[in-house]
Amino acid sequence: MTDPERRAMARARWLGASVLGTTSPNPAVGAVVLAADGTVAGEGATQPPGGAHAEVWALAAAGERARGGTAVVTLEPCAHTGRTGPCADALIAAGVARVVVAVPEPTELAAGGADRLRAAGIDVEVGVEQDEAELGALGPWLTGVREHRPQVVWKVAATLDGRVAAADGSSRWITGEQARAAVHRLRATCDAVVVGSGTAVTDDPQLTVRDADGRDAERQPLRVVVDRRGRLPEGARVLDDAAPTLVSRAADPAELLAELYDRDVRRVLLEGGPTLAAAFLRAGLVDEAVVHLAPKLLGAGPALVGDLGISSIADALSFETVEILPMGGDVQLRLLPTRHTGARQSVLEGS
Amino acid sequence: MTDPERRAMARARWLGASVLGTTSPNPAVGAVVLAADGTVAGEGATQPPGGAHAEVWALAAAGERARGGTAVVTLEPCAHTGRTGPCADALIAAGVARVVVAVPEPTELAAGGADRLRAAGIDVEVGVEQDEAELGALGPWLTGVREHRPQVVWKVAATLDGRVAAADGSSRWITGEQARAAVHRLRATCDAVVVGSGTAVTDDPQLTVRDADGRDAERQPLRVVVDRRGRLPEGARVLDDAAPTLVSRAADPAELLAELYDRDVRRVLLEGGPTLAAAFLRAGLVDEAVVHLAPKLLGAGPALVGDLGISSIADALSFETVEILPMGGDVQLRLLPTRHTGARQSVLEGS
Repeated sequence: MTDPERRAMARARWLGASVLGTTSPNPAVGAVVLAADGTVAGEGATQPPGGAHAEVWALAAAGERARGGTAVVTLEPCAHTGRTGPCADALIAAGVARVVVAVPEPTELAAGGADRLRAAGIDVEVGVEQDEAELGALGPWLTGVREHRPQVVWKVAATLDGRVAAADGSSRWITGEQARAAVHRLRATCDAVVVGSGTAVTDDPQLTVRDADGRDAERQPLRVVVDRRGRLPEGARVLDDAAPTLVSRAADPAELLAELYDRDVRRVLLEGGPTLAAAFLRAGLVDEAVVHLAPKLLGAGPALVGDLGISSIADALSFETVEILPMGGDVQLRLLPTRHTGARQSVLEGS
Repeated sequence: MTDPERRAMARARWLGASVLGTTSPNPAVGAVVLAADGTVAGEGATQPPGGAHAEVWALAAAGERARGGTAVVTLEPCAHTGRTGPCADALIAAGVARVVVAVPEPTELAAGGADRLRAAGIDVEVGVEQDEAELGALGPWLTGVREHRPQVVWKVAATLDGRVAAADGSSRWITGEQARAAVHRLRATCDAVVVGSGTAVTDDPQLTVRDADGRDAERQPLRVVVDRRGRLPEGARVLDDAAPTLVSRAADPAELLAELYDRDVRRVLLEGGPTLAAAFLRAGLVDEAVVHLAPKLLGAGPALVGDLGISSIADALSFETVEILPMGGDVQLRLLPTRHTGARQSVLEGS
């Protein structure tokens, strides 16, 4: 891979991430077309379902400059005709000389793009910086392909002592404005936002995506309240007409996720509360955690997560910290669950 | 201040920090002597009580190169004869042309150094980067001068959900090796390490400073167990002969700190547990918090801090995060308590 191609791939990942939350059930793909001289000729990202795929969009922007150039794409161009024509054919028609791909197409339905390109005499490289692309904007769609369920991001805001509210139940505001604005941006990348009935009743959140000025965004994720016992009152804000809402009677997280998957949801933001979070964690159905920690102490109040059935430190649920971000006075941690390996830390050192 | 002087002041703060924990009841001062051409001629830091002060040490290293040069010191050179002679006189004798000082001497006993230097025709600048020096290695001593008590650093290691142990009481190990090694380095900067009898009984820690190879360091802080009801068993490891130990019957944090201050303790590491930490926090006697967070969840177990008498989120104890440090898989937060201002965050934004 050349330097311009490396830069183009990073940009393609960014382009994919920029449309996360708007493409489901399709993958959020990014594409950059480089002209024969290595300069950027066009960029594109997956349009909402029924719209153009990333490569087609980028080719359209590049026009004649694509001829003899290189297409850099986060996902292998499809070879099948769905609501749009095969992207492989579009690349052939545009006359590109080379195609660089991060993630090979994992579905049989759309596979064969690279082969078709090669058959047309195009140089194709697949698997370039694949991990980065899989952990990024393609994650939700890949989770769907592999596990037939949406990706689950658990978001929680707590004090240093792990409290999500004070003893009297008050929780506004644990975190500052910057962290709360980040939650709205995070919601915007998701197809659905899920809370338990306890949170819906106690906090009465609206669960919409709002911009910096407090205005509702044009596109709103599905609001989901897990309410098996019908506790949600009619006047709850989550039932207003600012966004669609699903009140689910699902018995467990897997059932809920199946229900959402059938509605083309590929990325879920799990926002609370402790009981629902514990149920997802116990089921191993949290793919990423975004924790906002406020530098505060309460000394009492409900904990960040409910009972996990863990009694010993050796059995603690472990995560890998992948990002630490100061956010106003607060701190944002992004964490990936560590799948159990049975490994334990050394017990040789004293205290 | 010139660029070489600015660099020298940063270095002087570092030199002071390097002897923190070895100088009490004296301040941990750092000094750099620049030759007339601005190059570093000598460096020094406060030696253990009875030994040379920082300036004298730096002047000795500089020798004749000090003549016509500049002394950069974190604390105003003393003008009195204690166990050592006045530093001001040593600077005059060495023939320096200029003295740059961060913090003016706050005690009447030792004051007058700058005046004596000026009277000898030396150019003196005081108050340079004073805040940095006061928040650094001079903090413990200044707390003693101003509040007649030691500085208190509260250290705690917890999971993301604020647990310091699992439901069965097991807590080894919540954090990884790097964080635990950092605790030993932190202990080494303190004159005393304090735990409650609950921690001493449950965890039976040795509370010594050990190096990377697990060997006891030469200098050990005083180990202190607050044990009002005589719960500490005779065979407790904290009572071994690896370091001196004080079993205190103090009724409250203020009484304990007074007792330690009388023993020349100027910097205390408060290591646990939740009840003792809560008592110090409620009394407003925590000057800094060092929190080690492990990316783990337990869902149950004792919390990081006991009851603080806080029932509403608006009354939460607030801190300012001054440092966020990845530490192996864990995260270290350094926090300073926010003195209550009555200010509350905006309640205009929705959730």
